[in-house]
Amino acid sequence: MKIAISGKGGVGKTLLASLLAQTFNKSGYRVIAIDADPDANLAVTLGLPDAGKVTPISEMKELIEERTETQSGKRNPYFKLNPRVDDIPNRYSLKHNGIRLLVMGPLKKGGSGCYCPENALLVALLAHLLVARDEVVVLDMAAGIEHLGRGTARAVDKLIVVVEPGRNSLETAHRIARLAKDIGLENIAVVGNKVHNQREREFITSGLTGFELLGFIPYDQTMMDADISGKSFVNASPSITSAVNGIYQKLMIAVKT
Amino acid sequence: MKIAISGKGGVGKTLLASLLAQTFNKSGYRVIAIDADPDANLAVTLGLPDAGKVTPISEMKELIEERTETQSGKRNPYFKLNPRVDDIPNRYSLKHNGIRLLVMGPLKKGGSGCYCPENALLVALLAHLLVARDEVVVLDMAAGIEHLGRGTARAVDKLIVVVEPGRNSLETAHRIARLAKDIGLENIAVVGNKVHNQREREFITSGLTGFELLGFIPYDQTMMDADISGKSFVNASPSITSAVNGIYQKLMIAVKT
Repeated sequence: MKIAISGKGGVGKTLLASLLAQTFNKSGYRVIAIDADPDANLAVTLGLPDAGKVTPISEMKELIEERTETQSGKRNPYFKLNPRVDDIPNRYSLKHNGIRLLVMGPLKKGGSGCYCPENALLVALLAHLLVARDEVVVLDMAAGIEHLGRGTARAVDKLIVVVEPGRNSLETAHRIARLAKDIGLENIAVVGNKVHNQREREFITSGLTGFELLGFIPYDQTMMDADISGKSFVNASPSITSAVNGIYQKLMIAVKT
Repeated sequence: MKIAISGKGGVGKTLLASLLAQTFNKSGYRVIAIDADPDANLAVTLGLPDAGKVTPISEMKELIEERTETQSGKRNPYFKLNPRVDDIPNRYSLKHNGIRLLVMGPLKKGGSGCYCPENALLVALLAHLLVARDEVVVLDMAAGIEHLGRGTARAVDKLIVVVEPGRNSLETAHRIARLAKDIGLENIAVVGNKVHNQREREFITSGLTGFELLGFIPYDQTMMDADISGKSFVNASPSITSAVNGIYQKLMIAVKT
């Protein structure tokens, strides 16, 4: 099962990724959570000690140079487009409460003309994780779906777009859906987060007709309070945990059928 | 006066950029607002008709090819690093209620090794806007400060980092401040947004000691409701408008002294 989570910044992708990773893990699956969001924080949300000190793969200069065969300090326009990556998940991931975490760093938008060694490594790594490995993958990504190859995109069982009650996040959802279709990724569903009331639920469903809806996550001040108190906030709200369990159930049915 | 606005996704950069642009405009300044955020929405927030149809400069393939002297369809590794850009602001910006808007598209993270024609054009354009033009610039950018040149960075009178009451947004603020210092940009200040109460204000101030604080913007459900009702939400909340006026006053004093 390979799940990618996308959406506008700040809608709650990381929260959903963390709770889904935990739910898969509790249900007996081996799980690797991948942080490919520029506002990287999956390590914090999953409660890793020293989460702030994790270096993303995208910033491991020596590894990138070694694998893409670029030379340090030189602006070498040639580099290996199919670097070796199969050992990276096990060597560079962290394990916490049974969940493996790989902090990858953000993919750069591009495809059409953005050449750089780190992107070549990240794209190859993502393809390997989605296509060749057999555990559950939960991928937290802000953007970048548009330059996955078609083969990699086909390996995604569900692209979940998180939205909140606001027009901008719905526009982003439509944009992501268009980009996804361009690469043949049609297994898309939405989750509405930070929902206060029925009116906001209706705003989301009426703005996203044609999308499969996996569920709503309520707004809960308890979680905000836990966050600013420095507590592990991801499990602070029973109503949110329960909503994500419902989303997990629907996801399992949607993917298996 | 050149103002750049950064911060974690979803904290409210676009809201602040829109309200500041309006405030400068009402005070008699000529203003150009620049949208360099991947979740582009400054056009929507400023109330432009057909806001969804604006093409960002980063997606104007013919313009990019013409100016960087790359050829269509060819993966040409050579392109002009100093493309002509001085005519772009007037030719490709839109004007609405006295404010000029340029939808630039996001800068790619990079600097160390990310070569692409569109980034070359955007970086040159941003340098021109910040250094050579004489109106007030309000720049809404998610990231990308790290690859402004030192000369361009020096032209920024204030980098405003927007945060919300949550640990992740404070971590992003610290990361942005480190990146800014690396390029010699030390005129940094913060604005706390979506603040519910005194406890949240204290959480932000205690987490950001050493930062200049320009002010707090309260959380106001009125704005959320106006947004989902399809109204022009940016001026829907008197308490938010008043808070931004206070921020504007402090900004003017901070920059002039």
